[in-house]
Amino acid sequence: MPTRRLPRRAARAPSFACVDHDRTARRGFPEVIYCEGKTPAQVVAIAKEILSRADVVLATRARKEHIRPFLRAVKGARHHPAARILAVERRRLPKRGGVVAVVAAGTSDLPVAEEAAVTVEVMGGRVERFYDVGVAGIHRILGIREKLSRCSALIVVAGMEGALPSVVAGLLDKPVIAVPTSVGYGTGFGGVAALLGMLNSCSSGVTVVNIDNGFGAACAATLINRQIAS
Amino acid sequence: MPTRRLPRRAARAPSFACVDHDRTARRGFPEVIYCEGKTPAQVVAIAKEILSRADVVLATRARKEHIRPFLRAVKGARHHPAARILAVERRRLPKRGGVVAVVAAGTSDLPVAEEAAVTVEVMGGRVERFYDVGVAGIHRILGIREKLSRCSALIVVAGMEGALPSVVAGLLDKPVIAVPTSVGYGTGFGGVAALLGMLNSCSSGVTVVNIDNGFGAACAATLINRQIAS
Amino acid sequence: MPTRRLPRRAARAPSFACVDHDRTARRGFPEVIYCEGKTPAQVVAIAKEILSRADVVLATRARKEHIRPFLRAVKGARHHPAARILAVERRRLPKRGGVVAVVAAGTSDLPVAEEAAVTVEVMGGRVERFYDVGVAGIHRILGIREKLSRCSALIVVAGMEGALPSVVAGLLDKPVIAVPTSVGYGTGFGGVAALLGMLNSCSSGVTVVNIDNGFGAACAATLINRQIAS
Amino acid sequence: MPTRRLPRRAARAPSFACVDHDRTARRGFPEVIYCEGKTPAQVVAIAKEILSRADVVLATRARKEHIRPFLRAVKGARHHPAARILAVERRRLPKRGGVVAVVAAGTSDLPVAEEAAVTVEVMGGRVERFYDVGVAGIHRILGIREKLSRCSALIVVAGMEGALPSVVAGLLDKPVIAVPTSVGYGTGFGGVAALLGMLNSCSSGVTVVNIDNGFGAACAATLINRQIAS
Amino acid sequence: MPTRRLPRRAARAPSFACVDHDRTARRGFPEVIYCEGKTPAQVVAIAKEILSRADVVLATRARKEHIRPFLRAVKGARHHPAARILAVERRRLPKRGGVVAVVAAGTSDLPVAEEAAVTVEVMGGRVERFYDVGVAGIHRILGIREKLSRCSALIVVAGMEGALPSVVAGLLDKPVIAVPTSVGYGTGFGGVAALLGMLNSCSSGVTVVNIDNGFGAACAATLINRQIAS
Amino acid sequence: MPTRRLPRRAARAPSFACVDHDRTARRGFPEVIYCEGKTPAQVVAIAKEILSRADVVLATRARKEHIRPFLRAVKGARHHPAARILAVERRRLPKRGGVVAVVAAGTSDLPVAEEAAVTVEVMGGRVERFYDVGVAGIHRILGIREKLSRCSALIVVAGMEGALPSVVAGLLDKPVIAVPTSVGYGTGFGGVAALLGMLNSCSSGVTVVNIDNGFGAACAATLINRQIAS
Amino acid sequence: MPTRRLPRRAARAPSFACVDHDRTARRGFPEVIYCEGKTPAQVVAIAKEILSRADVVLATRARKEHIRPFLRAVKGARHHPAARILAVERRRLPKRGGVVAVVAAGTSDLPVAEEAAVTVEVMGGRVERFYDVGVAGIHRILGIREKLSRCSALIVVAGMEGALPSVVAGLLDKPVIAVPTSVGYGTGFGGVAALLGMLNSCSSGVTVVNIDNGFGAACAATLINRQIAS
Amino acid sequence: MPTRRLPRRAARAPSFACVDHDRTARRGFPEVIYCEGKTPAQVVAIAKEILSRADVVLATRARKEHIRPFLRAVKGARHHPAARILAVERRRLPKRGGVVAVVAAGTSDLPVAEEAAVTVEVMGGRVERFYDVGVAGIHRILGIREKLSRCSALIVVAGMEGALPSVVAGLLDKPVIAVPTSVGYGTGFGGVAALLGMLNSCSSGVTVVNIDNGFGAACAATLINRQIAS
Repeated sequence: MPTRRLPRRAARAPSFACVDHDRTARRGFPEVIYCEGKTPAQVVAIAKEILSRADVVLATRARKEHIRPFLRAVKGARHHPAARILAVERRRLPKRGGVVAVVAAGTSDLPVAEEAAVTVEVMGGRVERFYDVGVAGIHRILGIREKLSRCSALIVVAGMEGALPSVVAGLLDKPVIAVPTSVGYGTGFGGVAALLGMLNSCSSGVTVVNIDNGFGAACAATLINRQIAS
Repeated sequence: MPTRRLPRRAARAPSFACVDHDRTARRGFPEVIYCEGKTPAQVVAIAKEILSRADVVLATRARKEHIRPFLRAVKGARHHPAARILAVERRRLPKRGGVVAVVAAGTSDLPVAEEAAVTVEVMGGRVERFYDVGVAGIHRILGIREKLSRCSALIVVAGMEGALPSVVAGLLDKPVIAVPTSVGYGTGFGGVAALLGMLNSCSSGVTVVNIDNGFGAACAATLINRQIAS
Repeated sequence: MPTRRLPRRAARAPSFACVDHDRTARRGFPEVIYCEGKTPAQVVAIAKEILSRADVVLATRARKEHIRPFLRAVKGARHHPAARILAVERRRLPKRGGVVAVVAAGTSDLPVAEEAAVTVEVMGGRVERFYDVGVAGIHRILGIREKLSRCSALIVVAGMEGALPSVVAGLLDKPVIAVPTSVGYGTGFGGVAALLGMLNSCSSGVTVVNIDNGFGAACAATLINRQIAS
Repeated sequence: MPTRRLPRRAARAPSFACVDHDRTARRGFPEVIYCEGKTPAQVVAIAKEILSRADVVLATRARKEHIRPFLRAVKGARHHPAARILAVERRRLPKRGGVVAVVAAGTSDLPVAEEAAVTVEVMGGRVERFYDVGVAGIHRILGIREKLSRCSALIVVAGMEGALPSVVAGLLDKPVIAVPTSVGYGTGFGGVAALLGMLNSCSSGVTVVNIDNGFGAACAATLINRQIAS
Repeated sequence: MPTRRLPRRAARAPSFACVDHDRTARRGFPEVIYCEGKTPAQVVAIAKEILSRADVVLATRARKEHIRPFLRAVKGARHHPAARILAVERRRLPKRGGVVAVVAAGTSDLPVAEEAAVTVEVMGGRVERFYDVGVAGIHRILGIREKLSRCSALIVVAGMEGALPSVVAGLLDKPVIAVPTSVGYGTGFGGVAALLGMLNSCSSGVTVVNIDNGFGAACAATLINRQIAS
Repeated sequence: MPTRRLPRRAARAPSFACVDHDRTARRGFPEVIYCEGKTPAQVVAIAKEILSRADVVLATRARKEHIRPFLRAVKGARHHPAARILAVERRRLPKRGGVVAVVAAGTSDLPVAEEAAVTVEVMGGRVERFYDVGVAGIHRILGIREKLSRCSALIVVAGMEGALPSVVAGLLDKPVIAVPTSVGYGTGFGGVAALLGMLNSCSSGVTVVNIDNGFGAACAATLINRQIAS
Repeated sequence: MPTRRLPRRAARAPSFACVDHDRTARRGFPEVIYCEGKTPAQVVAIAKEILSRADVVLATRARKEHIRPFLRAVKGARHHPAARILAVERRRLPKRGGVVAVVAAGTSDLPVAEEAAVTVEVMGGRVERFYDVGVAGIHRILGIREKLSRCSALIVVAGMEGALPSVVAGLLDKPVIAVPTSVGYGTGFGGVAALLGMLNSCSSGVTVVNIDNGFGAACAATLINRQIAS
Repeated sequence: MPTRRLPRRAARAPSFACVDHDRTARRGFPEVIYCEGKTPAQVVAIAKEILSRADVVLATRARKEHIRPFLRAVKGARHHPAARILAVERRRLPKRGGVVAVVAAGTSDLPVAEEAAVTVEVMGGRVERFYDVGVAGIHRILGIREKLSRCSALIVVAGMEGALPSVVAGLLDKPVIAVPTSVGYGTGFGGVAALLGMLNSCSSGVTVVNIDNGFGAACAATLINRQIAS
C-alpha cells in the first residue's frame, strides 16, 4: 500500500496527476494549474510536466507560499501579483482576434478582473481595462460606451448586486460575460446575490461564470475573440 | 366546543377577529384588510367593523371572489382592478406632504406598482407614476431624473435582477424604497434574486420591503411624506 | 386616478409599455416580447408598436391563449410550436457569420433547445441541431465531435445533473453556452442542480444562462456568431 | 502590462479608484469609503482624493490595521471605535431636520447601532440612542414610546428573531428602518433569521437594509430627516 | 406479484398498514391518522382497525373528500371543520391536568390553532382560546397576561415574522410551544421565516414544532399537562 | 426549419429520441422510459423502438393518460398501478442472485417502494416487501431483523425525518440503499429533510438516491444482487 | 458624542446593558448572560449588576478568556468546563418537581448536553444523564427505556441525522425536547440536517430548540418540571 | 455534580463513550473512531477499549495532533497520511470478494479517495486505484473502461460539477457509489453542487454518500464486495 510515500514522490514527478498533454490540440491551450489545494511542490511538478511538451504555462490562484518556489524552480516564470497568477511564456502566443474589454465595478473586484485580464493576455489576446465604473454613478459607464462598442467581447466583473453587466449589455451589441465576485457582506452570500442578479439580467445575451471565476471568463472570451478577424 | 359554528358566525360579526380600533390613533390610519386567505364574508365583516369607527377602509390583494360581495355589501366601496384593491373613502383624507413617485421596471411589475400607488393615494398622498423604465435602456431613466428629484420619496418596483433602485438612488438625494417583484423564472426564485439585488445595492440609502409588497412600501412612503411641509 | 381604465386601454395602444425603439440601433435587434404574464391583447399591442418601426418581431414563451389572437391580428405571423415562439419576419434578416450548434441531452429538453434554435434563426443565424446525446451514452457525443468543431458557437442544453456542457467543451476549442433546464425532480430543484453543475464545470470556458433560458443563450450566440466572417 | 506596479501606485494616488466627485451634488454627501477589503494605503489615498474637493470624509468598517495609518496621514481625522468609523469633519455639516432615533435590542447589536448613529451625526443629523430594549422584556419598549414618537425616523437594530421593529412600528406613526444583525447562532444563519423576520413584519411600513448595514440605514434616515422642517 | 390488487384490498382491511396497537400502552393515546396522501377508503379502514382495540380515533388534515365517507362508515364520527379533524370519541377521555392556552396571532392562523385546540380536547385536556392578538397591537397581549399565566402550557400560533411566542414567553413562567404557520408570502417562504423567528427567540424556553403542525404542538402540550395535578 | 412538424412525426417514429440500443450490452438492461414530460404517443413510439431489439421494456412514472394508449398499442404490456409502471416482458429475465428487501416506513411511501420492488422484479430479481415499519414503533423493525439479514441488498424507503435506514443499517451487515420520499410538509421541504437525514446517517454504509427515486434504488440493488451466487 | 468612552465605562457599570431585574418575578429566574460576543469585563459587570438583586447568576458559552476574570471578580463563582458555564449560586434554589433526563447520541454532543444538564441543576431541577446512546446501536436505547419513562421531561441531544428523539419519543409518554447539534460535516450543514430531522419527527410530541441550544432546552424542561408535584 | 472531572477521566477510560462491542457481530467490523472533535486522549482511550475485544481499529479524519499520541500509545498503530487514517491491524482480515475500484477526478480529490481506498483495504478488501481521470478529458476514462468492468463495485470521487460518476456508470454494469468532494469554490458550495449532480445522475444505479465521506463509500463497497465469490 503505497499511500505513505505519495506526497514525497509528488515533489519529483506528478504521479498523482495525469497531465492531459493532448489538450493544446483539442482546446488551443495546454492544461492550466489551479493552485488552491495543491502544495508548492505539486504545482512546480505539474508545471514542469506541462512544459515538457508546451511553451506556455498558466497557474492561477497562486498563494503566498507558491510564489518563491515557483519563481526559483521554473525558468522564465513571472508573477502577476494583482492577478494572483504565475505564468511562463517561453514563446509568446501570437496576438489573434480583436480586443477584449475587462470592466470592473469597484476597487475590491480588482483581483478577479486582473485574473481575467492577464489570462486573456497570456492566451494571446489584447485587453483593454475599464475599472471602478459601478452603477451608483451611471455617468462613468456612459462615458466609456464608445470604447466598449469597439471590443469583440466584454468581461464585466461586479460584486454586491451585480447590476453592471445588465447596464453595459443594454448599451451594446457585443457578447458580455459576467463575473460575479464574492465582494459584499450579509445577504451578498459570498457572491450569490451578484450571481443571481446576472443570471436574471433583463438585458438579453449576458452569460455568466462561477463566482470569482475571472479565469473562466477569460477562457470564454478568448474562444470568442480568437475566431474574429483582427 | 364551538368550532363547528365558527365559519357561520363569521359572516355576521368578526368574532374571529379582534379589530385594533386604536390603530388610527397610534399609526394614523385604521387597520388594513389583507384579503388573501380570508373568505368574502370575513372581509366584508371586518370592513364593516372598521367602518363602525373610521371613515376609510383599505382591503388589499382582493381576488375575483371578493369583488362582488364587497361592492354590494359595503356602501361607497370602489374597486381598483389594476391594484387588486377594494377601498372605501367616506371622507377623503386631506392631501398632506409632497409627492411620492412610483417607478416600475416592466409591464409585469404593474400590479405591485399600482398596489403601492393606490395605497398612497387612499392614505392621503399625491402620486406620480413612471412605468416601464427598466435598466436595459438606461436613457429612459435619465430622461425622468429631473421629475424624480422633486418628489419627497420614491417607491421603485422591479423584478428579475432588481437593479433599477440602485440606478435611481445613485442619481438623487431622496429616500428610495425598493419593492422586489416575483416577476421572472428559474433562478429568479419568485423574487428572491431581485430582493437580494436590492439589499446589496451599491447605492447607499436604499431600503427594501418584502417581495410584491407594494402596500408596505406605500405605508413607509406615507409615513415619510406626511411629515414634509407641502 | 385612471387605474380602472388601464386594462381596457391596453388592448388598443401599449400605454403601459414604453417600447425601446432605439434598441435595434444599439443592440442589432428590436425589443423582444416575453409573453409570460402578459395578456394576448398586450402581446398583440406591443408587437404592432414594434412593427411600426421594425420588420421583425419575436415573442417567446407563447402560451395556448396567445397563439390564435396573435396569428389573426398580426399580419405575416408564424407559430413555432416546439419552440413556443410567435414570430413575424416581414423581411428575413440576411444570414451572417458561421453556424451555431444547438445540442440537447434528452427529449424533455427539446422545448428549450428549440427556443434557442428558432431565436438564432430569426435573428439571422444558421443553426445545426444535435438532440438526445446525453452523457449516459458517451459514444453519441464522440460521434458528432467533428461536426461540432466546425461551428462558431455551441448552445448546450441539459437538465438533471447538467454534465453535457462539461463533456462537450472538453472536446473543442469553441465557446460553449450552457442552458440548464428544469427537467428532473426532487433534488433537481427545478434546474438548480443542472445550473450548479454548469457553473462548476471542470472544462474551462463554459458560460451559463438562467434556467430554461434558451432565448438568452441564442442572443449570446448571435452576438458571437455575427462577428465571424462567414 | 502594468499589474505589478498597481499596489505601489495605490499608496500615492488612487489610480485603481475613479472617485465620483460629483456625488455631493447629486446625493448631498461625498463618496463614503468601505474599508473592508482595502489596504490602509488605499483607504488613505481615497480619503485624500475625496478631501481634495470636499470637507467631510466617512470611512466605515475600519479594522485595527486602518486606524493608525489613517489618523497619522489624514489631518483632522477622528476614530469612533464603537462604530468602527474613521471620520474627518473639516467643517461640520449644519444640523438639519428633526431627530433620528437609534434603537437596539441587545448589547451585541451595539457596533451596528453605533455605526448608524455616528453616520447620521457626521451627515448632519441629530441622534437619540435607546439601547438594550429587546422584546423579551416588553415593558422597556413601552417605557420609551413617548420619546420615540417625537423622532422623525427610527433606526431599529436587532439580531436573533428580529422582532423589535415589528413591536416598535406597531406603536408609532413614524418610518422605521430595520437593521438585522448577524448576532445569534445556529439557525440565526448570520442574520438571515432576523432579516426574514423584519421583511415579514406584521406592522406595516417597516423597511429593511442588509444584515449589519448600520451605515445604509443611516443614509436612508438622513435622506428622510433632511427634508423635515426642524 | 400482488401490487395490482393492493388498492382494492385497501378498502377492506389495512394490509398496507401495520397499525401500532401497542401505542396506547406506550404513549397514552392510540395511533393518529394523517389523512393527507391517503384515500378515503384507506382512512376509513385504518380508523376501523384502530377502533377494534381503542375507544378514540383522531384523523387530522381531513380534506373535503374524506368527510362524507368517514361520517357514513365510522359510527359516532364527528367532523370539526375549522380544525380539519375527524374524530370518534366512543368514551370521552377523563379530563386530566390543568388548562392549555391556544394563542393565535391572526385570523389566517385559525385552522392551525383549531387543529391544536381540538386535538388537546380529544386527548382529554381543557383548552382556553386567545385569538387575533398579534404583536402589531401589543396591548392586546398585555390584556390577557393574567389569564395566560394560570395555564399549565401555552401553544402559540403565528405566521409572518413569528414574533408572538417571544413576546408571550417573556411575560410568563410557563412552557411555550410555538407553531409557525405558512401564512404570509414572498420571503415568508411558506412559514420558514416564522419558524426561524421562533427558533431564534430571545425569550428562553420557547420550543418549536414543524410549520402548521398544530397537532404536534397539542401532543407536546398534552404530555406536559397530563402530569400536572388538576 | 422543420420544428412545426416535430410533434406530428413523434407519434410515428422517435426521431426526437436517439435510443441507446447498445445499452443492454453495456449495462445489462435496455434503456428505460421516464414517462413524466412525454406524451403518450412519444412513450409508445420509444417503447416500440426499444422492443425492436429487446424483449423487455420498462416505463416509469406512468400517468393516467399514458396507461390506455400504452396497453392498446404495445402488445403484452402490463400496468402495475401501485408502482406507476408500464412494463412489457416478452421473455422474462431469468432470476439471478439473492433476494432484495424493500422496506418502507409508512403507507404514503408505498408508491415509491412499489416502483422499486417492481423494477427489481422486471430486471430479473427476487423481492421481499416489508411495509409500514416506521421508527415511531421500533419493535416492528426488530421483529423483522432476522428476515432482513438474509437478503443481499436492502432498499429502505422513508419520508419525514428519514431515520429508518439508520436504524435498519445499524442492525445488519448488508448494503442499505436509502430512498427519501417527498412525504411530509413544512420543513420536510418535499423530501429534503429525509434526504439530509439519510446522507448524515450515523450508521456507516448507507448510500442514497434522489428523492422519490425508487427506480434508481432498484437499479443499484440489481447491479449488486446480480453478482451474488444465488 | 460619547462612543469612544463606551468600552471603558463597560468595565465599571453596565451602562450599555439595561438589566431586566423584573425577570425573576415574571419568569422565575434572573436574566442569564450569553458570553459569546461580550468582553470579560462586560460579562463581569452584568453579573455583578444581576447579583445586586438576585442570589443566582448563570453565564453560558463562556470562552477561555472569560473564565479567569470571572472567577476572580465574582465571589462564589464556579466554572463547569464541560458545560462551558460560569455560575454563582449564593443560595441554592430549592429542588422542585421531578427528574429531567438528558440523553445524548454521541461523544461530540457532550458540550451541548452538559450545558443543558448544568442549567437545569442551577435552575433548581434534578437531572439524570444518559450519554452515547445513538441509534446506530438501538439496543442501548431500549436498555434505558424503563429509567427514561420515570422522568418528567426529556432533553434529547443529537447531531448528524438527529434521529434519536424520534426513537426515544416513540417509546414513552413524556415530553421530549430535542436539541440538534452542529456535530457532523458536509450536508450536515452545521446542524441543519439534525434540526430538520427533529422538526419532521414521525413520533408526535417532539418539540425542538435552536441548534446547540442546550440552555434553551433546559429552560423549557425547567418550566415543565417545576409544575410537577415532586 | 461530576462535570468538572469529566475531561480528566476521559484520558483514562472512555466513561464518556459507551463502545458498541456488539458491532462486529452485527455488522462485521468493530466501531470506527471519527477523530474530528475528539481530543487525542479520547481517541486513544476509545481505541484501547475497542482493542480489548477486537483485533482491528480504524480511526478516520486524524488531524496532526492525533498522530503522535496515537502512534505512541497504541501498539501496532500505523498512520496513512494521504488518507488521514490511523489504523491497527493486529490480525489482518482475510481478503474476501472481488476488487473495489477507487476512481478520482482530480488531484485535490485524493484525500477523500485515499480515505475510501485504505478503509476498504483495512476492512479486508482488494483495491485498484484510478486517479486524475476527470471528464474534461473524456479519453482518460474510456481508456480504463475494460479494467473498471472487472471490479465488483466502484467508488467514484469527484468535486466541482461531480459529473464523473454519470459517465463511468453509463459505461458499466457494476454498482457505482459516488462521493462528492468539497473541492471547488463559489457556487460549488463546499461540495453541494457535486452532490446534486450525483443525485440527479442520468445514469441509473448511481448511489451517493455525504460530501467528503470516503469512509462511508468504503463501508458500502465492502458490504457489497464481501458477498461476492472471489
